[in-house]
Amino acid sequence: MTKRNKNSAILLMHCPDAKGIVAQVTAFINDNNGNIITLDEHVDRLDKTFYMRLEWELDGFLIPHDKIADFFNTLIAIRYNMSWKIYFSDPKPRMAIFVSKLPHCLYDILARVHSGEWDVEVPLIIGNHHDLEPVATQFNIPFHYFEITENNKAEQEKKELALLKEHNVTFVVLARYMQVISERFIEQYPNEIINIHHSFLPAFPGAKPYHSAYARGVKIIGATSHYVTSELDAGPIIDQDVVRVSHRDSIDRLIMKGKDVEKLVLSRAIFLHILRRILVFNNRTVVFN
Amino acid sequence: MTKRNKNSAILLMHCPDAKGIVAQVTAFINDNNGNIITLDEHVDRLDKTFYMRLEWELDGFLIPHDKIADFFNTLIAIRYNMSWKIYFSDPKPRMAIFVSKLPHCLYDILARVHSGEWDVEVPLIIGNHHDLEPVATQFNIPFHYFEITENNKAEQEKKELALLKEHNVTFVVLARYMQVISERFIEQYPNEIINIHHSFLPAFPGAKPYHSAYARGVKIIGATSHYVTSELDAGPIIDQDVVRVSHRDSIDRLIMKGKDVEKLVLSRAIFLHILRRILVFNNRTVVFN
Amino acid sequence: MTKRNKNSAILLMHCPDAKGIVAQVTAFINDNNGNIITLDEHVDRLDKTFYMRLEWELDGFLIPHDKIADFFNTLIAIRYNMSWKIYFSDPKPRMAIFVSKLPHCLYDILARVHSGEWDVEVPLIIGNHHDLEPVATQFNIPFHYFEITENNKAEQEKKELALLKEHNVTFVVLARYMQVISERFIEQYPNEIINIHHSFLPAFPGAKPYHSAYARGVKIIGATSHYVTSELDAGPIIDQDVVRVSHRDSIDRLIMKGKDVEKLVLSRAIFLHILRRILVFNNRTVVFN
Amino acid sequence: MTKRNKNSAILLMHCPDAKGIVAQVTAFINDNNGNIITLDEHVDRLDKTFYMRLEWELDGFLIPHDKIADFFNTLIAIRYNMSWKIYFSDPKPRMAIFVSKLPHCLYDILARVHSGEWDVEVPLIIGNHHDLEPVATQFNIPFHYFEITENNKAEQEKKELALLKEHNVTFVVLARYMQVISERFIEQYPNEIINIHHSFLPAFPGAKPYHSAYARGVKIIGATSHYVTSELDAGPIIDQDVVRVSHRDSIDRLIMKGKDVEKLVLSRAIFLHILRRILVFNNRTVVFN
Repeated sequence: MTKRNKNSAILLMHCPDAKGIVAQVTAFINDNNGNIITLDEHVDRLDKTFYMRLEWELDGFLIPHDKIADFFNTLIAIRYNMSWKIYFSDPKPRMAIFVSKLPHCLYDILARVHSGEWDVEVPLIIGNHHDLEPVATQFNIPFHYFEITENNKAEQEKKELALLKEHNVTFVVLARYMQVISERFIEQYPNEIINIHHSFLPAFPGAKPYHSAYARGVKIIGATSHYVTSELDAGPIIDQDVVRVSHRDSIDRLIMKGKDVEKLVLSRAIFLHILRRILVFNNRTVVFN
Repeated sequence: MTKRNKNSAILLMHCPDAKGIVAQVTAFINDNNGNIITLDEHVDRLDKTFYMRLEWELDGFLIPHDKIADFFNTLIAIRYNMSWKIYFSDPKPRMAIFVSKLPHCLYDILARVHSGEWDVEVPLIIGNHHDLEPVATQFNIPFHYFEITENNKAEQEKKELALLKEHNVTFVVLARYMQVISERFIEQYPNEIINIHHSFLPAFPGAKPYHSAYARGVKIIGATSHYVTSELDAGPIIDQDVVRVSHRDSIDRLIMKGKDVEKLVLSRAIFLHILRRILVFNNRTVVFN
Repeated sequence: MTKRNKNSAILLMHCPDAKGIVAQVTAFINDNNGNIITLDEHVDRLDKTFYMRLEWELDGFLIPHDKIADFFNTLIAIRYNMSWKIYFSDPKPRMAIFVSKLPHCLYDILARVHSGEWDVEVPLIIGNHHDLEPVATQFNIPFHYFEITENNKAEQEKKELALLKEHNVTFVVLARYMQVISERFIEQYPNEIINIHHSFLPAFPGAKPYHSAYARGVKIIGATSHYVTSELDAGPIIDQDVVRVSHRDSIDRLIMKGKDVEKLVLSRAIFLHILRRILVFNNRTVVFN
Repeated sequence: MTKRNKNSAILLMHCPDAKGIVAQVTAFINDNNGNIITLDEHVDRLDKTFYMRLEWELDGFLIPHDKIADFFNTLIAIRYNMSWKIYFSDPKPRMAIFVSKLPHCLYDILARVHSGEWDVEVPLIIGNHHDLEPVATQFNIPFHYFEITENNKAEQEKKELALLKEHNVTFVVLARYMQVISERFIEQYPNEIINIHHSFLPAFPGAKPYHSAYARGVKIIGATSHYVTSELDAGPIIDQDVVRVSHRDSIDRLIMKGKDVEKLVLSRAIFLHILRRILVFNNRTVVFN
């Protein structure tokens, strides 16, 4: 699991738990000459929900690409009342990056993209400040500046959305983008906008978490990547990580240590998202990694 | 996943990777009215091996307990050239604990057993020193002393094995037992003897790893739980963990910090073993946790 | 740093930062023929406070034990407006343990005490339930039962305090004691009552933190040891640690994983407290470990 | 502790442990009107060695810069048989980076330098391959190519050393530079060449550690930053860190996870080196962080 497979299909699904789901779905793939590459399942016993991620090779699969969804829905999904989605490994997903002034996450992302670590395209970077335009230029990626004020926000977001559509953007990464996204925008990309919050949520939501952490005298700080929902810093958590701190660490040092956690936690979430290894249900994630 | 399920069967298997295994096995369970509780699979692409752990409820399962193995073998396993084993959740597994002089792992284990954290019986403790007999007494568990010398080892191990058989011992835990087990003994309990080594293997095998770690000036120390094989400290690794150290830590302090890691890493391995969540192949483990 | 030194004195102090403090204090020790074993200092640049822990051997020290405090205060402390305390390594500190129903922290503590890991006496265990009386009995430590109700709390705490005084208790450990301590009680043991909270504070204060963690879908859970103050779960944090969790972990499994973190984080705090390595100021700790 | 202080002096020293060292040294600073910013000391009880790092402000210090070394040596160091070095915070240290083909460490370093996270100059990058020349170009840093063969190594290193001298290079970073440095080269920069090894040393020294880790079936992998000495991968360890892996991780995935650890562990070592927080003695480090 480092790259997306070539010419494969990925099924993400959940439904009320029931007998025989795995047998039925795997028979569907198998009987139509598909080779299962990976199967991950999870049963949440508390809310009696069955989750599965299944990836299979499309070479030789007897159902044509454009009919897979229909066949799967009719023959399987409806019977089990499934919520499901099928992704194809081709073409590559397209990621837009939103930034403000801090470069550490952007550098980490672009270094990975540039060195081919991820199978993803980055058609554009959007900033609400000009500060990181030079970084975009360093990596030859178009930078679009959208100043956001209280008055122009709705209008500017509309333009941003138009730009994303124009570039066939699949998902959006907020790389320390210090601006709240409106609900209208979020609705266009449900569970396709990834944010990094610079604390170990639910501790220290909102602004200046490192200052709060310092004041509280915690011995560990962290960062949280999550999907953006309309409630601030409350969306489904994808990944978290922490780093040990002590009385020796000033606020500046907390911020510095925190940056290293932030960039890794965000990049790990992007990686898992590109591989479509994340299911979302009830504001929680199931991550098959 | 905290307790063994009641009246369930657990299949652990591996075989050369092939199309349709999951579909076939799940159909076998499903067609005979078994309800799958969990299914975990893994494909090792390097050595093209398929691994699966599958647990299903036996209530209402149409094949009688004593025929499941035969039916599974004939109808499924032979066709895919599977190595496999089926465990039943009843009766409880029975664990023997071997100790020498250090009490921390023994205390950690007995506190868990005593408070009902694990579904396991401990019919006896065996020691090659008398030091920990009082701890066994504290917890009302019979303690058997076997002095081991160069000359009597074969003979003493024979008696130990007889005692284990007499008490229907399923698996053995070496809780900082500072005595090498002979190959003849190991062969009686293949992948059923769990050891804790007080270093982050393969660094610092053998005796006095904390002294070696201190001399080398490492910044992290660790512990390793593994199945015992005939080659010392080289068996399949079940779990490892680490703790950060610094120049401030004397060898005594390394040992003290290490003990906390040792006891947790050993207890986690025991827990996973009781739940039969560990597959072994090619001196490596697949741990479905 | 594993045991308290024999016949030594430990100075813990803080004061407004100023030039020459280290030189003055070390000269005071040195000129009176004391040998400094360890010196740790910290300057908090934000609130301009100087912290120091200094330990020196008393063998050959020219100032008699009972005059050290007075001499230090007159010659040094007053000039720098220091808050300070001097502890002597003899006699051993005496620890009282308060428990309710969960045994994991109690077992971890008693196993360490019993095996001589810590230089501490445990004259008594106090419980507001009878559940853990057998564990006290296992380790031959007197158990005192104090039922606490809404009506009798003040009265019962008075009796508990009398008992602590009678046994010359130096500090108190709340080992998953599920009962709020009154302010009146706390005032008798300022920064001498250590609690373990079963979450990564300030996330999930109050009751049922594992249920809250599960509901929020966090990927890491933790535990926090802290000194008890009148505000619930808000006292100075001594230590914290975390463990990774995933969607696979039910609430029961979160609780089980959490217990392992709780017991280590509590025991580390006790260890540091016994060695007098913790300074408290402004609801934060400086921990020289 | 995030930036070097302005106009300060840093003393790093070790010597046989003795009474009164702290008092003497702090009096020396204090009596000459220096203000101590930080003092860290450590006594290794095993080899009876005293270590200290002391930083003081030079504003108003009564001894001129160019005489500090002489005065300190004569008045203090000689009496205690000290090994010592004094560094001045100005001018900035100058770092040369050696690279081969893998960009992740180089990107991490240059992103930090470029965004002003560290107080350091990077006058040049040296590569034994052309692969990373474009990255140097992206960040406007001169790139020098030195092809190394078995026959030309001595000659090429001579040219490299001349180039380093010409650019007043203070220390060298091997950012996954896959080429052994000769002893003659190392002698020119004792404890001033930092390497990152892609394993948790002493496990898996030499080439292809991730392949070895995979074959051994370890559950945790790591990285090690260390000073380069004439013995391969055996120099004083500065920092180490680890990441958990499982059977799910292919070798490619181990390599990918490892890269994230490598870049952080290397960058943390560079940061500590720039701040002169590392003492080396007996092939071990004392790191005041």
